[in-house]
Amino acid sequence: MTVHTGRHFLQIPGPTNVPDRVLRAMDMPTMDHRGPEFAEVGHAVLAAMQRVFRTRQPVIIYPSSGTGAWEAALVNTLQPGDKVLMAETGQFAVLWRGIAEKFKVDVDFLPGDWRHGADLEQIEARLSADKAHKIKAVCVVHNETSTGCVTHPQEVRKILDRVNHPALLMVDTISGLGSLEYEHDAWGIDVSVAGSQKGLMLPPGLGFNAISEKALAVAKANPAMRSYWDWQEVIAINKAGTWPYTPATNLLFGLREAVNMLEEEGLENVFARHKRHSAATRAAAKVWGLETQCQEQGAHSPALTGVVMPEGHDADNFRKVVLENFDMSLGTGLNKIKGKVFRIGHIGHFNDLMLMGTLSGVEMGLDLAKVPHRGGGVLAAMEVLKGRDVVAMPKAAVA
Amino acid sequence: MTVHTGRHFLQIPGPTNVPDRVLRAMDMPTMDHRGPEFAEVGHAVLAAMQRVFRTRQPVIIYPSSGTGAWEAALVNTLQPGDKVLMAETGQFAVLWRGIAEKFKVDVDFLPGDWRHGADLEQIEARLSADKAHKIKAVCVVHNETSTGCVTHPQEVRKILDRVNHPALLMVDTISGLGSLEYEHDAWGIDVSVAGSQKGLMLPPGLGFNAISEKALAVAKANPAMRSYWDWQEVIAINKAGTWPYTPATNLLFGLREAVNMLEEEGLENVFARHKRHSAATRAAAKVWGLETQCQEQGAHSPALTGVVMPEGHDADNFRKVVLENFDMSLGTGLNKIKGKVFRIGHIGHFNDLMLMGTLSGVEMGLDLAKVPHRGGGVLAAMEVLKGRDVVAMPKAAVA
Amino acid sequence: MTVHTGRHFLQIPGPTNVPDRVLRAMDMPTMDHRGPEFAEVGHAVLAAMQRVFRTRQPVIIYPSSGTGAWEAALVNTLQPGDKVLMAETGQFAVLWRGIAEKFKVDVDFLPGDWRHGADLEQIEARLSADKAHKIKAVCVVHNETSTGCVTHPQEVRKILDRVNHPALLMVDTISGLGSLEYEHDAWGIDVSVAGSQKGLMLPPGLGFNAISEKALAVAKANPAMRSYWDWQEVIAINKAGTWPYTPATNLLFGLREAVNMLEEEGLENVFARHKRHSAATRAAAKVWGLETQCQEQGAHSPALTGVVMPEGHDADNFRKVVLENFDMSLGTGLNKIKGKVFRIGHIGHFNDLMLMGTLSGVEMGLDLAKVPHRGGGVLAAMEVLKGRDVVAMPKAAVA
Amino acid sequence: MTVHTGRHFLQIPGPTNVPDRVLRAMDMPTMDHRGPEFAEVGHAVLAAMQRVFRTRQPVIIYPSSGTGAWEAALVNTLQPGDKVLMAETGQFAVLWRGIAEKFKVDVDFLPGDWRHGADLEQIEARLSADKAHKIKAVCVVHNETSTGCVTHPQEVRKILDRVNHPALLMVDTISGLGSLEYEHDAWGIDVSVAGSQKGLMLPPGLGFNAISEKALAVAKANPAMRSYWDWQEVIAINKAGTWPYTPATNLLFGLREAVNMLEEEGLENVFARHKRHSAATRAAAKVWGLETQCQEQGAHSPALTGVVMPEGHDADNFRKVVLENFDMSLGTGLNKIKGKVFRIGHIGHFNDLMLMGTLSGVEMGLDLAKVPHRGGGVLAAMEVLKGRDVVAMPKAAVA
Repeated sequence: MTVHTGRHFLQIPGPTNVPDRVLRAMDMPTMDHRGPEFAEVGHAVLAAMQRVFRTRQPVIIYPSSGTGAWEAALVNTLQPGDKVLMAETGQFAVLWRGIAEKFKVDVDFLPGDWRHGADLEQIEARLSADKAHKIKAVCVVHNETSTGCVTHPQEVRKILDRVNHPALLMVDTISGLGSLEYEHDAWGIDVSVAGSQKGLMLPPGLGFNAISEKALAVAKANPAMRSYWDWQEVIAINKAGTWPYTPATNLLFGLREAVNMLEEEGLENVFARHKRHSAATRAAAKVWGLETQCQEQGAHSPALTGVVMPEGHDADNFRKVVLENFDMSLGTGLNKIKGKVFRIGHIGHFNDLMLMGTLSGVEMGLDLAKVPHRGGGVLAAMEVLKGRDVVAMPKAAVA
Repeated sequence: MTVHTGRHFLQIPGPTNVPDRVLRAMDMPTMDHRGPEFAEVGHAVLAAMQRVFRTRQPVIIYPSSGTGAWEAALVNTLQPGDKVLMAETGQFAVLWRGIAEKFKVDVDFLPGDWRHGADLEQIEARLSADKAHKIKAVCVVHNETSTGCVTHPQEVRKILDRVNHPALLMVDTISGLGSLEYEHDAWGIDVSVAGSQKGLMLPPGLGFNAISEKALAVAKANPAMRSYWDWQEVIAINKAGTWPYTPATNLLFGLREAVNMLEEEGLENVFARHKRHSAATRAAAKVWGLETQCQEQGAHSPALTGVVMPEGHDADNFRKVVLENFDMSLGTGLNKIKGKVFRIGHIGHFNDLMLMGTLSGVEMGLDLAKVPHRGGGVLAAMEVLKGRDVVAMPKAAVA
Repeated sequence: MTVHTGRHFLQIPGPTNVPDRVLRAMDMPTMDHRGPEFAEVGHAVLAAMQRVFRTRQPVIIYPSSGTGAWEAALVNTLQPGDKVLMAETGQFAVLWRGIAEKFKVDVDFLPGDWRHGADLEQIEARLSADKAHKIKAVCVVHNETSTGCVTHPQEVRKILDRVNHPALLMVDTISGLGSLEYEHDAWGIDVSVAGSQKGLMLPPGLGFNAISEKALAVAKANPAMRSYWDWQEVIAINKAGTWPYTPATNLLFGLREAVNMLEEEGLENVFARHKRHSAATRAAAKVWGLETQCQEQGAHSPALTGVVMPEGHDADNFRKVVLENFDMSLGTGLNKIKGKVFRIGHIGHFNDLMLMGTLSGVEMGLDLAKVPHRGGGVLAAMEVLKGRDVVAMPKAAVA
Repeated sequence: MTVHTGRHFLQIPGPTNVPDRVLRAMDMPTMDHRGPEFAEVGHAVLAAMQRVFRTRQPVIIYPSSGTGAWEAALVNTLQPGDKVLMAETGQFAVLWRGIAEKFKVDVDFLPGDWRHGADLEQIEARLSADKAHKIKAVCVVHNETSTGCVTHPQEVRKILDRVNHPALLMVDTISGLGSLEYEHDAWGIDVSVAGSQKGLMLPPGLGFNAISEKALAVAKANPAMRSYWDWQEVIAINKAGTWPYTPATNLLFGLREAVNMLEEEGLENVFARHKRHSAATRAAAKVWGLETQCQEQGAHSPALTGVVMPEGHDADNFRKVVLENFDMSLGTGLNKIKGKVFRIGHIGHFNDLMLMGTLSGVEMGLDLAKVPHRGGGVLAAMEVLKGRDVVAMPKAAVA
């Protein structure tokens, strides 16, 4: 069947399904970005993003991809030769390191197996050993989109405090924000990095930084060259609800509506929903007899589930079968797990029946692609959704 | 959970899910309904509807509900005291009869049990007995939306021809058109009645009549009073791509796009898809241990499935549980089967994974509402969708 | 220039320019017309329309054109042979009479010259003379869209009261409602007829009746055949926020938003705006040296202005020049004034600069079509818009 | 009047009015940015932008504002200490210089009075004098949005060729592309910089670079640090119709449709239209007795007109009067001409009657704000639009 009907199932872990309300909010005439009506929009989205990041400190909204927001975090706070500690949680950690290296930052990249969150013991060891405080920042990926493993940033903060290390804590929560608990202020994050196309339920095109006063002070003292990503001019002009350049007006209209929707549902309900769907997905995978890529209890992502293919079966062939037969997009395995893993996104504007359509498509696709598995994963998922199973919450998130 | 997220599952048998392309086509500035640009739209939709009805004879598009198109069929061709033969296939047959009676038409209403299509033997008996040709029209409902039973109009045509009876054949295909085979010309239908909000994938607001030359001649000779529904003035003015009143411009924009979509998929593929989804739904119901309302082999509707609740369980309570827990609308039982039957729509802009979400919601809902049933219906449905089961097609439709 | 850019100027007197907010409200998924969420919509639009009609009595919303709402007014209250008094104010009065005659109503059609509102003296004369009260209804067109002349219905009410005549007062306010004052209750109107595509700022597709208790009592006693247009079943079912058929859901979504917009502006401001634009248009016409079709002081329509072409110049040729050169649709002259008159719509979602674009297009078009005229009409219009001129309000409307 | 009705007149020189077709194209579900369907979009927009830039060389599309595309041009080709020649044509030249200086580029900034295009004689003098070829690039602003003066880049190319200087030619055509002639290849431009929200008729959010092979070779050899803006990785991955990060999918949907629209009209017609509107605007200003900010014959921008206020009258007060009374946004004077100049945008999705509404709003606003002027500017504009006046085209653009 080449012509598909009905709605496409966009079950990659971002971009996610954009609500009609958000699309319709964007589908409005562009306005004067220096006029009084736009200033209301500007103030509204800046305040909204503070509420989502759970911060009273500045939030920057860039017209950019998430990679831009990564770069912004680095170029504002670091200069060539500075040392940072990063943890290899997966492909997105690898990519962030790549950007740091392009700016001649000296990255200590703690190795990982892509099946766990960041190795907190190693982080503690490195920080403890760094008596001279050469490490200027610790960078971790909150929700590693390539694997489905969560690193709990508040645990890293505890380490920094425990060893009394002054390094900045910078967190990529691109696919975490709006889908799992995140507390920029309470967790002592210095720079948070996010993007529009994940839990925020928008199309791609906006990148975000949330910034602590400490990070801002570092930035002010930082002579490294930058312009587009420079925080200071933006923060100054944002006070008037506007930007030093023409902002992406219509994406901002959508952002206002998206945060309205998150708040109507209640962020805590949003997070619980994602966990429930993640638990149901894992229950299905267990029946299918397929491993999740994430192997750490308490680190399973509420936003997506990476599933490991049986030896000898290609994940991308399976994804192609699913796309062609069931008009569903699943996430590919990235980099070293390409062909070995596929990813099921259960993030954003989503619900139980969309999840069941998704899991049914996976189960039927496994069959059509002749991937060895046990049937009935969907039944196990339904048991979770009906509430019979206790949903195991990641511990740190609950705490 | 009071605030729902993700997409609502609109699984009543109409209005059906409207494709984004159709909604966006409607979301355009209204235009001068007497200008040259609109004339192109007018010509396009009239031609498109002829292709969908499979006719070269006139099609009328009313700004109206489907009930208006029912009335139009009657008031153009009949006058008070005229006799018509109708068959009680379910609630929509009952309603159509009601309209006929309001216009003082003498209805011979063949009784039915709401679990079968029209009783063709009885129809033949009445027509054979009517040597004086007092019966001016035979009216049947093609796809009885209240029960999920199909009456094959071409079989009625064969009877009329066999007994050489001149009565008009009038068919309500409101929920049939665009979801199961329909041949206005080849089947010798005199008046076809349809609506926009079912297989045509539009919001409600348009009613349709397709008319044979014979019916038009009857109408021309018919002195019964009418204005809005009168065919003749509309047909005359339609030749210029316009209407004798301001037509529902934006619904017509949507209609043009909807027929484009049906034709891109191919009508035969559209019909096969509906049958496949119907077969999968029945497979699920069989496992659940629930009867379908339709009890006639070869008459199961491709567009919807009526499901009978076990004794002592209220269908509307079940529907409420499903709506509240899973944000899915199912169809209620109408009139004498209220509370006893619920209906699953699998009509219109739909696909395999939307069906699986739907059936999963039903299966989980049965459980939550404590309706006795066997689990695993969804697995049986998946077997059908994967193509392992031979899909039994209604015979007449295949022939 | 065949490919136009920028926005089309839709300056016919309906359909009018639909606001983006209304189009976007309609561009939403259709919903279960029997579910709780829809009931909220249903209640909201019924209440909203009561506020717009200024009535506490029932309002009926039909999926239909305005012609359907005309028919509804007639078939509910009259039966064949009944006598009604109508006034020939223009083409729409002619058309309404035509419908009445199709239903064998005996119309006394007071002649008019299409350049004034209804002849109140003649109406009073006929009613006074009708001692036997054979006249069952007086029907007038509030805002005659074909000419731009207003008939003030409250004056007709005064006559009926003065001569103590029990006839129903039925008013077509299709292009009046939402653009000039209208008081269904205070003016003692028995049946008001309206449509969606004029002052209500919606696409075409909805017709309205507002009904007095007296009219409803007449309808209950009226044995004339009717079904689709029958008020009683609808009123009964509307109490639950729903309809006896599938209503035009998405047009209703739009209606809710359109009334929101009218009320945000304030109906009195809406009316004042229309009068201001009408005065500015007449000021321009005066400079151009062109007569308005309406020749009665106090009867100039706030919603549109009919302009008379100089002898020997064809209005439709002029309209074609304007359409081709300036991408603006103007209204054609209808029936006996075809070719002699063009109409400028200044109704609905409109503002000063849209009016100036419109009048500039007319002035340039007069020049390109070589229609004798004086230039500078636009300057006179600007004088009015700047507020230097006292805007002469129609007296009755002010009173 | 605080609640506005009708359409806002967005007559700033960008963001410009976005066509409904473009907004609706963006109002579609986001898709898998790595899937086959998106690759078609990717290939389509890259090819479309090559046609608009009139180049067969690479085009880069950034999720960014136009300021990002400025930065990209600089950081790919230059390194700290490099010398460039820039010309002070107005505020946007000033801002671009500011970015260069942040990256420690040594800018020779040729002074200007903000009322002319770049001083070509001085450019030639500097380049001739630079025997050692220390100047690595000449940077000019094609259409200086702050003043309404055009610099013809092809003249700069002729100078470079004449003096046989190897410097790169970099051109900001942010508000030029899609509104006046531009020939990236034929004019020998090395780096063109553009943005989405001007002649391309999109909301803001996309930045563009078009790059010559020569510029690309310079970039490959350039060790300066960069990541987000780096051309090479993007060009490599663009070959597959995709990007090294998640691109701004929905803005790209809109871009595809916007270029469709430009090509349906024909780029040469688009350019002629802008010139006509510019000439009509200047004709109005002349009658008003107000100077244009641009004082150079042949340099008047087709996209916008800067108008100088009479001594003692504040432009921003005037703009406020226009906004409040007529719901029209005009452009503010920037930097050193703040309060002295307002700008009328006549760029993008625009037509004659929108222009007349615009100019009428200006003329009425001048009156309401008590700015000394002669009335009747709108009549002069109409003379131009009717074609009686010869439209003086900028010479270089015609040649």
